[in-house]
Amino acid sequence: MTGIDDLPIRDELRGTSPYGAPQLDVPVRLNTNENPYPLPEELVARITERVAEAARHLNRYPDRDAIELRTELAGYLTRTAGHQVSVANVWAANGSNEVLQQLLQTFGGPGRTAIGFEPSYSMHALVSRGTGTGWISGPRNADYTIDVDSARAAIAEHRPDVVFITSPNNPTGTAVEAETVLALHDAAQAARADAAGALVVIDEAYGEFSHRPSLLPLIEGRPRLVLSRTMSKAFGAAGLRLGYLAADPAVVDAVQLVRLPYHLSAVTQATALAALEHTDTLLGYVETLKAERDRLVSELRALGCEVTESDANFVQFGRFEDAHAAWQALLERGVLVRDNGVPGMLRVTAGTPAENDAFLDAVRELMKETSA
Amino acid sequence: MTGIDDLPIRDELRGTSPYGAPQLDVPVRLNTNENPYPLPEELVARITERVAEAARHLNRYPDRDAIELRTELAGYLTRTAGHQVSVANVWAANGSNEVLQQLLQTFGGPGRTAIGFEPSYSMHALVSRGTGTGWISGPRNADYTIDVDSARAAIAEHRPDVVFITSPNNPTGTAVEAETVLALHDAAQAARADAAGALVVIDEAYGEFSHRPSLLPLIEGRPRLVLSRTMSKAFGAAGLRLGYLAADPAVVDAVQLVRLPYHLSAVTQATALAALEHTDTLLGYVETLKAERDRLVSELRALGCEVTESDANFVQFGRFEDAHAAWQALLERGVLVRDNGVPGMLRVTAGTPAENDAFLDAVRELMKETSA
Repeated sequence: MTGIDDLPIRDELRGTSPYGAPQLDVPVRLNTNENPYPLPEELVARITERVAEAARHLNRYPDRDAIELRTELAGYLTRTAGHQVSVANVWAANGSNEVLQQLLQTFGGPGRTAIGFEPSYSMHALVSRGTGTGWISGPRNADYTIDVDSARAAIAEHRPDVVFITSPNNPTGTAVEAETVLALHDAAQAARADAAGALVVIDEAYGEFSHRPSLLPLIEGRPRLVLSRTMSKAFGAAGLRLGYLAADPAVVDAVQLVRLPYHLSAVTQATALAALEHTDTLLGYVETLKAERDRLVSELRALGCEVTESDANFVQFGRFEDAHAAWQALLERGVLVRDNGVPGMLRVTAGTPAENDAFLDAVRELMKETSA
Repeated sequence: MTGIDDLPIRDELRGTSPYGAPQLDVPVRLNTNENPYPLPEELVARITERVAEAARHLNRYPDRDAIELRTELAGYLTRTAGHQVSVANVWAANGSNEVLQQLLQTFGGPGRTAIGFEPSYSMHALVSRGTGTGWISGPRNADYTIDVDSARAAIAEHRPDVVFITSPNNPTGTAVEAETVLALHDAAQAARADAAGALVVIDEAYGEFSHRPSLLPLIEGRPRLVLSRTMSKAFGAAGLRLGYLAADPAVVDAVQLVRLPYHLSAVTQATALAALEHTDTLLGYVETLKAERDRLVSELRALGCEVTESDANFVQFGRFEDAHAAWQALLERGVLVRDNGVPGMLRVTAGTPAENDAFLDAVRELMKETSA
C-alpha cells in the first residue's frame, strides 16, 4: 500500500499532520469557540428562501465579485465598528482562513516572511507554511499581552513582510491596545522602508465579544493595515465559512490578483446575506455570551484557577501541572475543552448557561481531586 | 490615493490582472461553458430541504472531512466512470480550482515546476503562479492534439513535479487517448525516478460530455495519477463551486496536510448532496447538450468554419483573420462567446437549441459579411 511518504510531497510537509481539533461526540462541546445558539427559525426560513432563489440560477457562475454581499458587510461594519467603510473596502472569502491565505499569497510567499506573537491563532503559521512564507514566532509577556518593546525589536531584527496581530487573541482571549497596534504598524513600515512597507493584519475574528471597540478605525490613512473578521462566531455561522476583511481599496484590488475566480459560491453568498438581515437578533446572543464569558472568568477564579483576562467568547484557564491530563479528565466528565499546547493552560468556549454550569461542575470535581 | 503598485505585493503580481471572462448582460451568453438548463424544481425543493436542515446546525463547524459527500461522489464515479472507488479515494473542495490549488501546494510550490500542454485551461498556469510553482508551457500539434514524442521530450528536459493533462481539453475540446496519458505518466515517473516520482493530474472537468469513457480506471495501481472533476458543468451547478478528485488514498491523505480546516461549508455540502440525488435527471440534460454540441460542429462546418473536434460542452471554431474582431461582431449581435487567445479561434458553449440557433444565425451573418 502506498503511504504519503512514498509520494513526491514537499519536504516540509513530511511528518506533519492535518490541522484540526478532535471532533468528538460528547454532551458538552466547548472546544472550538462555536456559538452555542442555533440560528433562530425565522432566519433559517429566510436562508431557505434566499438559497431557493440562488438554486434556480445555480447553473450559472456566482457573482465573481460578490458585490451585494460585500456591500452588506460594509454596512454592518459601518453600523457596529465605529468607522465608515464601503464595498470598495471589503473583501470576502470562504472563512477568514481563505482571506488570510489570499493575503499571504499576495503579500507573503516564497522568499518572504510573516511574524505573529505566540501563543496565538495557529493557522497564521500554518497558512504561512502553506503559501511558502517563512514564519517568525514573536514574543509575548508572561501574562500573554504583547510587549511593545520586544515586539518592535523582533520586527526590526527580522524585517517581516507580514505582521499578524490577533485581537482578541486566540487562545488567550487577550485584547490588544490600539496604541500597540500603531506602534507595531509603524515599526513594520520603518523596518521595510526600503521596500514598499509591510502588511499588518489585525485578526479580529472575536472582535464582537470584546469589552473594547473594534480596531477598524485604525485603517483610515493606513493602506497597509488590514482588519480580518468572520461570521463564524458572532453570527453563529461556523458552518457557513464566511470570512471578510476591511482595508484600503488597493488591498482589495490586490487580493483579486490571486483569488480563485468564483471562489464564493452562490449558496454561500445567499446564506450570508440572509444572516446579515438578522444582525440585531444575532448580536443579542453575543451580549448573552459576553455575560457568560465574564461569569466563567469569575467562577473559575473562585474555584482557584488562574484565568487570563478575556475579550473573546472563550476563556483560558489553569494552571495545571499536566494540562493534557486535565483535558482528558474533563472529557471523561463529558466536557470537551481545548488543549492548545499553552503550557499549563486549557481553553473553554463560553456555551449556554447550562453547558457552562456542567463545565464548572467538572472543573470543581477536578480541582477537588487534584488538591485531595 | 493608494494604488496596488504602492503596496508591498509580490513582484510577479505587478502588472497582472484578475482572471475572468467579462460578465456582460447580453441575450445569449455562451462564453463560460455553463450548463444552460436551470436545475429542475424538484431539485431546487430538495436543496432547500437539505439546506434548511444544515442551517439549523450552522452555528457548528461543518463535517471537516465531508464524509457523506465524498461517499456519494465515490458512488457517482463508480456508477458512471467505469471504475470502483470509495470515500478514501475521493476528496472535494470549493471548485476544481481549489482542488488543483491544494494539489500544487502539496506536490508543487516554491522550487518545483508544473507543465501543461497549451493552449489549455489557463487556470493551471495561474494556480501554479499563485502557489509559487514554476510553469512550463508544453507543446501541442497544429490540430490541438498532444504529440506524445514532443510531450515526452519536454518532460524529459524539464523534469516537472506536476503534469497537467486536460481531457477533454479546454478551450479546444480535444480528448486525450488513454495511451497518451499512460505514456506521459510513465515519462514523468522516469524523469523523476531519483525523487519520489511526479504527480500527473488529469483534469476531466468536461468528462461527462465526452464520446469516450472516463480515464478514471487509469488510477488503478498508479498512486501518482489523479483525476480531477467538477459539478459545475455536467451537474449544472457552476454556482455551487464543487470540485473533486479521485486518486489513491495516499493522495487524499496528502492534500489534507494543506487544506484549510473546514474548507467546505455545510450549505455547500448539503446542496451538493441534494444534486447527487438527482444525477439521472441531470445526466439527461448532458445527453441533450452532447447532441447540441455535435450539431454545432456540423452546422459550423457547413457554414465554412474550421472546427476542432469536440468532446466537451463547447466548440472551438474559426479561423478568423482577427478573432477578437469576430468576437466583438458576435457580441454586437447579442451573442457572447469566448476569446481564449488561441490565434484565429473562438470558443462557443453549447446552449439550449434556441441559443445555439441564435449563435449560428450570428455566425452566418458574420461569414457573409467577411466573404462579401
